[in-house]
Amino acid sequence: MSEPFSAVEVIVRKRDGEKLSDAQIDWVVDAYTRGVVADEQMSALAMAILLNGMDRSEIARWTAAMIASGERMDFSGLSRPTTDKHSTGGVGDKITLPLAPLVAACGAAVPQLSGRGLGHSGGTLDKLESIPGWRASVSNQEMFAQLESVGCVVCAAGDELAPADKKLYALRDVTGTVEAIPLIASSIMSKKIAEGTGALVLDVKVGTGAFMKNAEHARQLAETMVALGTDAGVHTVALLTEMSTPLGLTAGNAMEVEESVEVLAGGGPVDVVELTLALAREMLAGAGITDVDPADRLADGSAMDRWKQMIRAQDGDPDAPLPVAKESQDVLAPSSGVLTRLDALAVGTAAWRLGAGRSRKEDPVQAGAGVRWHARPGDTVTAGQPLLTLLTDEPDRFERALAILDGAYDIEPDAAYTAGPIVLDRVEA
Amino acid sequence: MSEPFSAVEVIVRKRDGEKLSDAQIDWVVDAYTRGVVADEQMSALAMAILLNGMDRSEIARWTAAMIASGERMDFSGLSRPTTDKHSTGGVGDKITLPLAPLVAACGAAVPQLSGRGLGHSGGTLDKLESIPGWRASVSNQEMFAQLESVGCVVCAAGDELAPADKKLYALRDVTGTVEAIPLIASSIMSKKIAEGTGALVLDVKVGTGAFMKNAEHARQLAETMVALGTDAGVHTVALLTEMSTPLGLTAGNAMEVEESVEVLAGGGPVDVVELTLALAREMLAGAGITDVDPADRLADGSAMDRWKQMIRAQDGDPDAPLPVAKESQDVLAPSSGVLTRLDALAVGTAAWRLGAGRSRKEDPVQAGAGVRWHARPGDTVTAGQPLLTLLTDEPDRFERALAILDGAYDIEPDAAYTAGPIVLDRVEA
Repeated sequence: MSEPFSAVEVIVRKRDGEKLSDAQIDWVVDAYTRGVVADEQMSALAMAILLNGMDRSEIARWTAAMIASGERMDFSGLSRPTTDKHSTGGVGDKITLPLAPLVAACGAAVPQLSGRGLGHSGGTLDKLESIPGWRASVSNQEMFAQLESVGCVVCAAGDELAPADKKLYALRDVTGTVEAIPLIASSIMSKKIAEGTGALVLDVKVGTGAFMKNAEHARQLAETMVALGTDAGVHTVALLTEMSTPLGLTAGNAMEVEESVEVLAGGGPVDVVELTLALAREMLAGAGITDVDPADRLADGSAMDRWKQMIRAQDGDPDAPLPVAKESQDVLAPSSGVLTRLDALAVGTAAWRLGAGRSRKEDPVQAGAGVRWHARPGDTVTAGQPLLTLLTDEPDRFERALAILDGAYDIEPDAAYTAGPIVLDRVEA
Repeated sequence: MSEPFSAVEVIVRKRDGEKLSDAQIDWVVDAYTRGVVADEQMSALAMAILLNGMDRSEIARWTAAMIASGERMDFSGLSRPTTDKHSTGGVGDKITLPLAPLVAACGAAVPQLSGRGLGHSGGTLDKLESIPGWRASVSNQEMFAQLESVGCVVCAAGDELAPADKKLYALRDVTGTVEAIPLIASSIMSKKIAEGTGALVLDVKVGTGAFMKNAEHARQLAETMVALGTDAGVHTVALLTEMSTPLGLTAGNAMEVEESVEVLAGGGPVDVVELTLALAREMLAGAGITDVDPADRLADGSAMDRWKQMIRAQDGDPDAPLPVAKESQDVLAPSSGVLTRLDALAVGTAAWRLGAGRSRKEDPVQAGAGVRWHARPGDTVTAGQPLLTLLTDEPDRFERALAILDGAYDIEPDAAYTAGPIVLDRVEA
């Protein structure tokens, strides 16, 4: 009986709609990490939190307890200010790839600990791993050195960073308790605060292809995370951005690297460029850098230079050809007119089914698989032209990908289409 | 993917306040029994059920699925009608001991599968095990034969009976999900229906010493269980009975056997006799036996004969001396007056702390430990007389038992005390 609480009393308190004390939160997170609180106890608590909520001070304490479960990185010795971005995940969201080197080219350091994809939204590490030789694993010392020399690192979080979150996230995934704003917010923010960044921009996606389907929930999540970051001394801002339409023209690991390189070369789809610049400006402002226009750094090639340095520093060859899928199949436009809708969730799910994504975290992904679309909402298409190209190494995957794309787009003969903004709103402390 | 559902989709459905389908309920209970649904998934579902509820048809299906997880007993071949009683548990609740042989003496058969105690409320099997030689384990064949020859069996449920309930109950106990009426009702009723009794009387306790502290929740539980029994073809009635004051004059395993034998001999505390007769009449009515007054069977010694036969049939010696605790300590009345309150929970907890109960199901219990009280509410006491006697084999247990009894009773100088009824209400279909 050396434990100060029992798991049951903590669960029952939250079950009955009461506030957990600081001591209870500290204990339950630590005891779960130690294995004293069992998975079945934590999942009951997670469900009670999902259904009964936590207030701002409980969430802050929960986040602090998750940070305290592991190491906390410190980049205060760098000569550059640190700034980072986190996206809640979308379809075709390759923004980190051009963004990190762009912000580095503007004088900040970007220490991005990133993740792999699960379900219909891709993961940044999966995309980068399609580059021959590139490795996601970087030691803390390497990370510090690379931030000093190149200015950006995108790598896997080590096991020492917020281990409570790692364990809890895996549990939530199998127990129907992912969709709890306090737990989502504390999961994201515990890692970002422990990562040691000085400034943070949150890209909170809203729409069919996003985790948050409606703006109200997205705003609630954004406000919760901005408050957590601010309370922890991290300059934090959130942008709510559109995710009912997929970003750019591709969803798939190697294809998204290719598209990112186009952006770094001064081209690329306009929406990807627009969002990259908007996020870069926020990241730079958070780091106190206001005298550089990131658009100039795309134009003058310095962002591309940083990209190549970053890839090489992690043993990748930025000039090597990227993997290409063995098989492809086109979806033709069934009629002529204006494309007025292309559903992000359907496109993301199709890419996942083609092999670009995974269902379980131990599944492999295909580098070349995915979906390329040849028109974006607002574009005019002609009956019979290729609308989408599906790519995979395993042709038996086409059928289920095609099935989900049925009804995923609208073509209207005489539609006047006006694209909405990508950045829907901005949340700050 | 041969499973028709995923655990997450079933959890999410209940989490979001929707009704589970029959197929989902059948699957999740079966898959949990098979280990395909993991403990941490079932505990999240249990918490969602606790917070979002289940409607009558969901509870009925859940109960049926738990019954279907194991064997179902069949006593239709007996020459006597079967009838049983279940108590939700109280302090000093030894009613099964005189009740089962009494009802047998009136012509019915009582096939009672019973349990052990946990926490402050004692278990019937623990009490009977204080009788030298008596064994709780009885095979199905022995049970049938004993019901035919003696008319009553009180024994442990085999592992084959509702194994889903056994597994789920153990899980709920450690995950703060015990207090869910749908789960309590289906747990009790799945075992009683699987036990194969034709009639059932539920003794739903209300008060400080009961699981249900308030009458509204107790009634809700009673109504839910009566509906479940009725729907399953079992003639089911519930009595709501008083449990803020402990029953009789003793709480403790051997002491309660002794008190039960006094009742069978025609004596014993009036409240124990009253409740035993009330429950006996309901059990007999449920079995269609209305021409026998159970009071006569207490008076003429035939209930006592059945008791001795029942104990002997399970290798016990009904005439052997019962174990007595090694140490005792009296609590003296601090003042003179009328005892107006004796708190059931405090008395039950004191008996538990003295060694009569257990905290974990694998703990042993002491046969002789417990509490004997020398006055009941309404009795006049004199300052300095023994009010309670605490008994244990381990004198270091006195201190914590005494602590919980501090403030557990009231003595008022000139109080006019009127005892309330034991049976508070009756619920039928």
